[in-house]
Amino acid sequence: MRIRLTLAYEGTDFCGWQLQPDDRTVQGEVEKALLTILGRPVRVHGSGRTDAGVHALGQVCHFDCPDGRDGFPWQRSLNALMPKDVRVVDSGAVPNDFHARYGARQKTYEYALWHDRGFCLPQRRRFVWACGPVDVPRMEAAAEVLAGEHDFAAFRNVGTDVESTVRTLSEIVLAPGPTAHESVWRFTANGFLKQMVRNIMGCLVACGRGRLDADGVRAILDSRDRTTAPATAPPTGLTLVRVDYAGD
Amino acid sequence: MRIRLTLAYEGTDFCGWQLQPDDRTVQGEVEKALLTILGRPVRVHGSGRTDAGVHALGQVCHFDCPDGRDGFPWQRSLNALMPKDVRVVDSGAVPNDFHARYGARQKTYEYALWHDRGFCLPQRRRFVWACGPVDVPRMEAAAEVLAGEHDFAAFRNVGTDVESTVRTLSEIVLAPGPTAHESVWRFTANGFLKQMVRNIMGCLVACGRGRLDADGVRAILDSRDRTTAPATAPPTGLTLVRVDYAGD
Repeated sequence: MRIRLTLAYEGTDFCGWQLQPDDRTVQGEVEKALLTILGRPVRVHGSGRTDAGVHALGQVCHFDCPDGRDGFPWQRSLNALMPKDVRVVDSGAVPNDFHARYGARQKTYEYALWHDRGFCLPQRRRFVWACGPVDVPRMEAAAEVLAGEHDFAAFRNVGTDVESTVRTLSEIVLAPGPTAHESVWRFTANGFLKQMVRNIMGCLVACGRGRLDADGVRAILDSRDRTTAPATAPPTGLTLVRVDYAGD
Repeated sequence: MRIRLTLAYEGTDFCGWQLQPDDRTVQGEVEKALLTILGRPVRVHGSGRTDAGVHALGQVCHFDCPDGRDGFPWQRSLNALMPKDVRVVDSGAVPNDFHARYGARQKTYEYALWHDRGFCLPQRRRFVWACGPVDVPRMEAAAEVLAGEHDFAAFRNVGTDVESTVRTLSEIVLAPGPTAHESVWRFTANGFLKQMVRNIMGCLVACGRGRLDADGVRAILDSRDRTTAPATAPPTGLTLVRVDYAGD
């Protein structure tokens, strides 16, 4: 029986999603709790990795339950066993051909910026990049360059081999933030390369600071060369909001 | 020269506002940073105490600078020296008769509730009381009983002597929360007794859970007896939003 979980986590105290022998990871905590429930190890498959410090509202993963457990309260049981910085938001049985990673049709990320120069609200410090004041129209002009289908090789950090670096960025829009000092950039695509959102945000903020413009972003995109782009934005501002599947 | 500071802090890792010899407090951190700047100890006077775990967006305090420092960048200097869970939001010189505590005309607090029974969002766990589902109309009926001028002795925890326990609760209203699973109660009064908001919230949630009703709240209020009221709500949900002064 295949079980699908939707997870929310605060990335602050995790070394990212992916299991590591000596570090605390989200996958590791879920697998540890499942070992307690099932009495034997099971592998959890996420929709993709998130970096250390990156948050999630709707990460999706699945695992195969080795024995029949119809109606088992996965959400309640896992939440009772796991630490409070990761929670099961939703759980349920899915067909055996559901796959959290290969079945993902599109993902949505949000990146929050803190703009006040004088202070960053303590309550928001783990969830923003305190980049200071920015020129919003310049950022929006640069974002337009990136919208749509492109080879995003210039915005990929090394470390993961992928067949193609072409992705369709169907949404790259600015929204008001949860406080008056914040703004939030929302990204939806059929897939994201490693650190792609953080690399795009590094570019957009460079534009917002007047150090780059839309033409410069186009040149970086066309170069397909990561070394031409500004530094990667910090993980704190980034949240994996949702993963969509064909059947949903 | 008297300096007024507006402070934001996340209460999670503080043993409250008030200076304590062996514990980490907000007042202690501000005084420590001022000692570094001024080279001698100064006393910081807050608008009032906040309990361990209680947050602030706009706590106000003042201190007297022993030497002339016109135009000194208090906000920038203090923020450079203090830990990131307390920040100076605003700073400036005030007349010598300004007093953060005695001059406070009214205060506003907010208390956030998390209503989903299945999980509490990790990102919000430090800032809410995960009380579960509640019956909102019952809570609003009970809140109406408490609005206005009353002797709030039944909602005061012991520990601080005050001349009178009569306060005017000019605002006690429900607002939408920052996420779909939250609601926020907003309280404005000319003054609050020790743990008054948390004790009122304990009552309102008891109403929301069907264990108390508006008549019961009226009986508690009339009793002027703390022991008749439900347990104090946890500090996590509470934030001191602002303090208003006559001259503002």
